Amino acid sequence: MNNIKAITGGVTAPKGYRAAGVEARIKSPKRDMALVVSDVPAAVAGTFTTNLIQGNHVKLCKKLIKGRMAQAIIVNAGNANACNGPEGLKAARRMSELTGELLDIRPGLVFPCSTGTIGLPMPMDRVEAGIALAVKALSRTGGPSAAKAIMTTDTVDKQVTLEFKVDDTTVRIGGMAKGAGMIEPKMATMLAYLTTDAAVDAKALQACLSVAVSESFNRITVDGDQSCNDTVLFLANGMVGNKPLSPKHRDWPVFAGAVGQATRELSLKIVKDGEGASRFVTVVVRGAASGADARLAARAVANSSLVKTAWCGGDPNWGRIIDAVGYSGAKIVEEKTDIRFDRLFAVKGGRRAAGVELKDLEKVFAQKEFTVEIALHLGKGTDTVYTCDLTKEYVDINAEYMT
Amino acid sequence: MNNIKAITGGVTAPKGYRAAGVEARIKSPKRDMALVVSDVPAAVAGTFTTNLIQGNHVKLCKKLIKGRMAQAIIVNAGNANACNGPEGLKAARRMSELTGELLDIRPGLVFPCSTGTIGLPMPMDRVEAGIALAVKALSRTGGPSAAKAIMTTDTVDKQVTLEFKVDDTTVRIGGMAKGAGMIEPKMATMLAYLTTDAAVDAKALQACLSVAVSESFNRITVDGDQSCNDTVLFLANGMVGNKPLSPKHRDWPVFAGAVGQATRELSLKIVKDGEGASRFVTVVVRGAASGADARLAARAVANSSLVKTAWCGGDPNWGRIIDAVGYSGAKIVEEKTDIRFDRLFAVKGGRRAAGVELKDLEKVFAQKEFTVEIALHLGKGTDTVYTCDLTKEYVDINAEYMT
Repeated sequence: MNNIKAITGGVTAPKGYRAAGVEARIKSPKRDMALVVSDVPAAVAGTFTTNLIQGNHVKLCKKLIKGRMAQAIIVNAGNANACNGPEGLKAARRMSELTGELLDIRPGLVFPCSTGTIGLPMPMDRVEAGIALAVKALSRTGGPSAAKAIMTTDTVDKQVTLEFKVDDTTVRIGGMAKGAGMIEPKMATMLAYLTTDAAVDAKALQACLSVAVSESFNRITVDGDQSCNDTVLFLANGMVGNKPLSPKHRDWPVFAGAVGQATRELSLKIVKDGEGASRFVTVVVRGAASGADARLAARAVANSSLVKTAWCGGDPNWGRIIDAVGYSGAKIVEEKTDIRFDRLFAVKGGRRAAGVELKDLEKVFAQKEFTVEIALHLGKGTDTVYTCDLTKEYVDINAEYMT
Repeated sequence: MNNIKAITGGVTAPKGYRAAGVEARIKSPKRDMALVVSDVPAAVAGTFTTNLIQGNHVKLCKKLIKGRMAQAIIVNAGNANACNGPEGLKAARRMSELTGELLDIRPGLVFPCSTGTIGLPMPMDRVEAGIALAVKALSRTGGPSAAKAIMTTDTVDKQVTLEFKVDDTTVRIGGMAKGAGMIEPKMATMLAYLTTDAAVDAKALQACLSVAVSESFNRITVDGDQSCNDTVLFLANGMVGNKPLSPKHRDWPVFAGAVGQATRELSLKIVKDGEGASRFVTVVVRGAASGADARLAARAVANSSLVKTAWCGGDPNWGRIIDAVGYSGAKIVEEKTDIRFDRLFAVKGGRRAAGVELKDLEKVFAQKEFTVEIALHLGKGTDTVYTCDLTKEYVDINAEYMT
């Protein structure tokens, strides 16, 4: 059995990567620019927001990624570089060009990313100064510093580092992400960057990343708002010298499994650090008439303000949960519906489960983490969404974000 | 010109109605049972929740309304009589039967309604005692008391009373509603009752009410949650002795206009008293590719937690608004999009409007009421939704509703 080991180091743990996080003061004094550079051009895969309003970096990255190669990622926090006119796309290009120039890398290999307030012009003097600072600060141990620099309202940085064997060669995957608000499936609503020192066929890398994202970042929701800047990029620079990985390779399942684990860990870290979140809730729907129905039901529950505030108060209010399924668009037959909190039945056959004490249900909801499982008994559709509660702190954080 | 005059009195202002609000202590000590009775059987129209999970009173009322006649409405607050098994439907029937028995009215003419916590058994001893109390308390001036008795987390009662002429006869429409949370289009998410002393053809009454609801209760949203108990009932007892109204009648537009005004006034009162609401916002979408697109866009903006918290903070964050339209499912072309706060441009051609000071936008958002108008310039689709902000008080109110 090939074991996957958790280590530390983030995006610079795999061979041949340097990174930096620096203070460019784009919005406020904190580390707010990150740079990740591979020693050699790397195969790249990416997934992007499906929002019809897209940040300028998304527009540019979607073009760049057609070349399937990347060598650097330059990220700023504090300004989303979105909805700010033609200058916005120029700003994204300029980030790419200047970084390439200073690193002596072709600009087509430098992917720019931005996160922060939407609708404001980019302060390019600060961004350019930040890029210069970041290039100077690049280091083989810069992963954790870069992870801090991409944070906005995040309260902790989010990193993952995994080590495993491919063809008896030790391979690493490093990752970092930022999340917090505007977290909603239909693509990730956040930024995440993964690096590996394995050589991977570019098409296989993309297929592998797409599956991993659908099982991780696309299953989390904080507030149901989907950002226009969501981006996941995955660089594979092949520095360990393995035979390029693809689904035909004996160890592909190990690699794909590690990618799945890395994205899952990052996505759960994002939900657990959801803006103001005090509880982490897994919503499972089973027995739906279809997979699409299961997804509708799980998302309606996970995004209901009434359900989320009840979680915040530790109130095992099953009525709001079944009500949300009722308006979700999914088929539901009241008399067939069961709801369990962890393993404890709250609702059986559409009504309060007999013999279950309210205080025992309250004990489940008093925990920091619990599962809400809804069994519809109508078919084989199943879906899982990871989410958090809605608290007064969420309101506080978001009531004065821009001004 | 036939003028519609606002008067007072609520559901008992039209001729031939009595009402009462009494304390049955179903959940806590407050007036929590309301009864409205017409002296004679009245034509009835109704609209109900489209949630697939339906309260037992909804199930029963949908059967009763096929008879097109009603004489009494008995309402309890504190328990939704929903998702509580076969006993729930029995409880709804019992409310109808006992009220009919005590009033000497055929039970098929007594419409029961419930609002409150979902998923708990009905305390029928209290309900039955409450019905007896309500029958005793019936009064020609009981409208305002009944309006108080249907409140749950509402902070003020919601009534409307209009007077106008039909065939030179004075006609009145009275109304009351409860709202607060779980307010979302796709049918009203609340209870509302209208009475009139005009004689109205039952089919015409239903058509008129359906249009009025689609233009009022179906255009309001507080939190995007749709309740399983939404019900609007409209009784027309013909006590003024007019020739029955229908679309063929010369004064039909006056009557239909008054119904529209009554439902609109009640619906706006519901939003303005949304749980914890501190601001009332009208979201207008113009120039959408279709009416359906306009509706999607308006609802995405009105239900976005990020947009609503920005409103709460008085933060004129246009980025979150255009972002919400971007994920709404409606077509949007960034460069064509304009956004105005009241009459002031915040966004023009997809970017911050030139020459408009942030402090002037902040002045708009500092008001208790303002309009957000989104012009997509893609077609002729238009829609309007009335909503409120998301505040810490909303979280407080809903974090401990059940227990």
